[in-house]
Amino acid sequence: MVVVMKLNTNAEQIATLDKRLKAGGYQTHLIRGTKRIVIGAVGDRRPVDPAGLESMPGVEKVLRIMRPYKLVSREVQEADTVVKIGGMGIGGNKLTVIAGPCAVESKEQLLLAARAVRRSGANVLRGGAYKPRTSPYSFQGLEEEGLRLLAEVGAQTGLATVTEVIDEESLTAAARYVDILQIGARNMQNFRLLRLAGKSGKPILLKRGLSATVEEWLMAAEYIVSSGNGDVILCERGIRTFEDSTRNTLDLSAVALAKQLTHLPVIVDPSHATGKRELVGAMSRAAVAAGADGLIIEVHPDPTIALCDGPQSLDPGEFDDLMTGLRPLATAVGREL
Amino acid sequence: MVVVMKLNTNAEQIATLDKRLKAGGYQTHLIRGTKRIVIGAVGDRRPVDPAGLESMPGVEKVLRIMRPYKLVSREVQEADTVVKIGGMGIGGNKLTVIAGPCAVESKEQLLLAARAVRRSGANVLRGGAYKPRTSPYSFQGLEEEGLRLLAEVGAQTGLATVTEVIDEESLTAAARYVDILQIGARNMQNFRLLRLAGKSGKPILLKRGLSATVEEWLMAAEYIVSSGNGDVILCERGIRTFEDSTRNTLDLSAVALAKQLTHLPVIVDPSHATGKRELVGAMSRAAVAAGADGLIIEVHPDPTIALCDGPQSLDPGEFDDLMTGLRPLATAVGREL
Amino acid sequence: MVVVMKLNTNAEQIATLDKRLKAGGYQTHLIRGTKRIVIGAVGDRRPVDPAGLESMPGVEKVLRIMRPYKLVSREVQEADTVVKIGGMGIGGNKLTVIAGPCAVESKEQLLLAARAVRRSGANVLRGGAYKPRTSPYSFQGLEEEGLRLLAEVGAQTGLATVTEVIDEESLTAAARYVDILQIGARNMQNFRLLRLAGKSGKPILLKRGLSATVEEWLMAAEYIVSSGNGDVILCERGIRTFEDSTRNTLDLSAVALAKQLTHLPVIVDPSHATGKRELVGAMSRAAVAAGADGLIIEVHPDPTIALCDGPQSLDPGEFDDLMTGLRPLATAVGREL
Amino acid sequence: MVVVMKLNTNAEQIATLDKRLKAGGYQTHLIRGTKRIVIGAVGDRRPVDPAGLESMPGVEKVLRIMRPYKLVSREVQEADTVVKIGGMGIGGNKLTVIAGPCAVESKEQLLLAARAVRRSGANVLRGGAYKPRTSPYSFQGLEEEGLRLLAEVGAQTGLATVTEVIDEESLTAAARYVDILQIGARNMQNFRLLRLAGKSGKPILLKRGLSATVEEWLMAAEYIVSSGNGDVILCERGIRTFEDSTRNTLDLSAVALAKQLTHLPVIVDPSHATGKRELVGAMSRAAVAAGADGLIIEVHPDPTIALCDGPQSLDPGEFDDLMTGLRPLATAVGREL
Repeated sequence: MVVVMKLNTNAEQIATLDKRLKAGGYQTHLIRGTKRIVIGAVGDRRPVDPAGLESMPGVEKVLRIMRPYKLVSREVQEADTVVKIGGMGIGGNKLTVIAGPCAVESKEQLLLAARAVRRSGANVLRGGAYKPRTSPYSFQGLEEEGLRLLAEVGAQTGLATVTEVIDEESLTAAARYVDILQIGARNMQNFRLLRLAGKSGKPILLKRGLSATVEEWLMAAEYIVSSGNGDVILCERGIRTFEDSTRNTLDLSAVALAKQLTHLPVIVDPSHATGKRELVGAMSRAAVAAGADGLIIEVHPDPTIALCDGPQSLDPGEFDDLMTGLRPLATAVGREL
Repeated sequence: MVVVMKLNTNAEQIATLDKRLKAGGYQTHLIRGTKRIVIGAVGDRRPVDPAGLESMPGVEKVLRIMRPYKLVSREVQEADTVVKIGGMGIGGNKLTVIAGPCAVESKEQLLLAARAVRRSGANVLRGGAYKPRTSPYSFQGLEEEGLRLLAEVGAQTGLATVTEVIDEESLTAAARYVDILQIGARNMQNFRLLRLAGKSGKPILLKRGLSATVEEWLMAAEYIVSSGNGDVILCERGIRTFEDSTRNTLDLSAVALAKQLTHLPVIVDPSHATGKRELVGAMSRAAVAAGADGLIIEVHPDPTIALCDGPQSLDPGEFDDLMTGLRPLATAVGREL
Repeated sequence: MVVVMKLNTNAEQIATLDKRLKAGGYQTHLIRGTKRIVIGAVGDRRPVDPAGLESMPGVEKVLRIMRPYKLVSREVQEADTVVKIGGMGIGGNKLTVIAGPCAVESKEQLLLAARAVRRSGANVLRGGAYKPRTSPYSFQGLEEEGLRLLAEVGAQTGLATVTEVIDEESLTAAARYVDILQIGARNMQNFRLLRLAGKSGKPILLKRGLSATVEEWLMAAEYIVSSGNGDVILCERGIRTFEDSTRNTLDLSAVALAKQLTHLPVIVDPSHATGKRELVGAMSRAAVAAGADGLIIEVHPDPTIALCDGPQSLDPGEFDDLMTGLRPLATAVGREL
Repeated sequence: MVVVMKLNTNAEQIATLDKRLKAGGYQTHLIRGTKRIVIGAVGDRRPVDPAGLESMPGVEKVLRIMRPYKLVSREVQEADTVVKIGGMGIGGNKLTVIAGPCAVESKEQLLLAARAVRRSGANVLRGGAYKPRTSPYSFQGLEEEGLRLLAEVGAQTGLATVTEVIDEESLTAAARYVDILQIGARNMQNFRLLRLAGKSGKPILLKRGLSATVEEWLMAAEYIVSSGNGDVILCERGIRTFEDSTRNTLDLSAVALAKQLTHLPVIVDPSHATGKRELVGAMSRAAVAAGADGLIIEVHPDPTIALCDGPQSLDPGEFDDLMTGLRPLATAVGREL
């Protein structure tokens, strides 16, 4: 930690600060510049919240040197985490493709979607049972009935399953039916939910918040891992920016960066990121080329009658074309599909 | 709703769309432009999710005409909502000032803060008992003990009380101890929590999310009101932008705009918005001048030892100066303090 | 400057870096933490570009301690700069109000606008002669004829004048006709234009770029001042964010912050910031309350036929109401109008 | 164009508006909804500025149906534009790789860079002679001497050349020495410069502004094309968002989208977008997979002594690795390198 003092600081302020830092277990190093005084504070107490220090008289700002996350960092574990689900691993050389409808609407709809994505090579079936919707008047999901259908269709088609959970009740229910629990973008900093996820005994798919920095995203994962669950899969799904010609802005640099900072697998959701079916293919290819460990893609048997997110859903034929195009690309970057 | 067709649309696509709109209860009006065909769809089914329509063949985009919120809109209720707490009203001519520490740390700390803010003219005591923190290693709040202290100190000083709730458990507990329940920025789209707040029987202080549009903020309020609770106080607390010299960017235009769109009271949190004590005064004045119905300000007996948010907390003397400066300003804009 | 070394740095890398820093005129201080090594580099060479250092082997990042601007900083000049135009001063206790149409359209239009704003108490007449327009097919301004009209109407009404310049040609022409040259948001980092403005001998109104940080804005002013022209007036006019219910997001915290960081006057443009006539009043009041030294407001004799920016222009009656409302507010914050 | 009327509009306001629209050459269609009245206005006058309409009494908002750009649109020209430079084409099946240093520093430096990038397969040499720098105290480029060196080294190595122009003077000079003129992000809406570029007789590389929407970017290209120069190459180089762990946020969805909206070639600058050497490879691969027509990459013989942008520059070995990795990827997406 480096404490930068104000121009007009005085000896007493420095002494007070020095005493406080030492009381906090730090060794201090005073550096007198031509204009400013700077104090380097050395210690392994990680992570320290420097907020109080910035309020002390004479202090201009506090610069943090250490990263605030620990367990999810490559500095602590260099090798990639591979999350195991049945015989499948997420985060290894083989790419994972999760596909299925935005919301579970009926057995028929889900089964049609599942068979189609399975045929084209997907590994995991997605489907929303508890839908967080911007409007209280929109379709909110089939809830437990949706979970039951997911489990049934997953078993029937041999696909693993993932669904979003939004609170303790849905998490507890979903943990009984599906293989992977998803925490959505709007709940990325629902810290209670993160801790519950940490104790759920299930792999967690953690989406990045719409306005979360990479560091906050990793800190959210740190919540889950530090609660006892190392099986976290990160998912970039677009951030909110000024650009309104796409639903969000897919941040693939964040994917490449996250792969360097953490050992956890990172996948990409091009459907929510772009909100436009006609961009899903290009962004899926870009994600794999950027180093993503997998994709999560919305596929509906008939997007024109989807109860949610129709404009970004592929139909089975479009999804099959996408998978066909991805194979040579995966090979070109040394991955398998 | 206006449906814009693609350049190369054909008669069959238009007929299909027309049929679907009519089945949905709309009357349709076909407008043939020199290049494009546009369909106006008229009906009072509000709010309709146009997502499915955008996926239909031949459709380029769907433009919504109606606002998606209803109960919170001035179109439905023209007169200001005044939220009553004891003898006090939030949203009327008299400005409400909520003040107190970021977190309840101890009885002594809370009592010192409460007495100070009361003396300077605050109406409501704030204090966090359940703290949503970015890091799992930071102080997370005293929880129920914090609530107990809030109730005790509130009673002792004659101040109403507000605290943040983060899930069903904390909401249920807080409803037993405090007067106003706060839903924080990170939970603004925690829709389950919004519904529970709608049934809590307590006034709700709803903070705007870090990257929420004004429309999404009002839709979140619509969740609460449509669940049966009309006592919602909106709070602007800064949005996330590229600017990093302040913690967030205080969006006062959103306050002025919200006051036009909704009848609910709107207050401002200059402490979280700026993250800097030395900007809190100027932004408090600006908020009142912009038409805010009140302020929520962090005050700590000694910010240098605050367990959270020290850099943005005022000490009692600074808060008193702020209140003194606000009085003539309130008068100048026709409000009372 | 503080150089943070990578975890796995070695003695040779540190020696190389140390040598380079010393060759650059710095004294170095090595601080060995429990995990990382940090080098404090002290020297008054300001501003140093640390880009090269970050590329050196073993270096993780370089933290700058000093602010990159100098001449515009309160550290160099504590007292407020007051820009003198005729008998008037911008930046002193008296607020400056600049008003007039987006574009000069005709003598009649400009004269009507000038007389109206003068009557209501404005000090300076604005009017665009060279319009930077997003579309090549939109009205681009009357150019030199517009300047001539500005000068004529300014003389006739006794108002000082300001107009936007967009390149060397328009700057040279405008300097012959008007009192203040404006550099628009889109040219805030047109560094050639900034240098020319520095040599123009005229006061410069420098708008903040749509996505410029406060620091970049001050650096742009530094360009002008370091080219020999200390008469710079900063203008906040809204930044670009995700929020689309207003044209831009007016950043009043930036105004309060800029007033602390620099001695230059800072004014606010609520018309471009909000893009909505019905928000201009509230944001004008908020700006004055936040500490702005003045306002620049679009006023058109008849906004419904304005050639540009009609929706954000006030008509003379609305402007008069605004001025009337501002007076008590100015008094309340210790300013004169 | 669709005009949405306010709730409380009256017959006179509608008649006035209707008259004005007809006077503007539109046919009008009145649609009476259950709550609101909407007027559809049909005509081929493109692009119309609806600003005046929004100021008319009774009007709530105006929704544009047509895109504001024309010449650059795929609606006007379906086939890809291929910009010819010597025997080379930019925008065809073969990818273009532009590489070289941020700034031309010396003949030796440029020649080392040119030989290296040529050897690894680059087609065009980049090098800045006129540098737009945030600080007036930073290195500003060798100016005409830099252009001379570019021409000399280009001729010697058989590489085409590109350099940034920042005003009329540098544009005129550069047009004498180099093959492609670049307009930088900060000048994307320097409309005078765009018009001059339109008359320069040279292909133009047009970078997207830091906070420009895709539509504004295409409108900037429309300026150049409508001034008589169809040889425009678009370049995505990252946008400004809240995320600060990368220098900017590379917006690859915008690349895929732009390829659908316009016939102009689109390339990507992963160096400026990320600001981090270690992310350039991944983002180059992602860009090609997303459908970009080429890349522009900063390469310096020794980034540790680069006068600008060292941290994002590759050294020759890193660049060679990048090119080697790109070849199979290009093949996988049906392109040549």
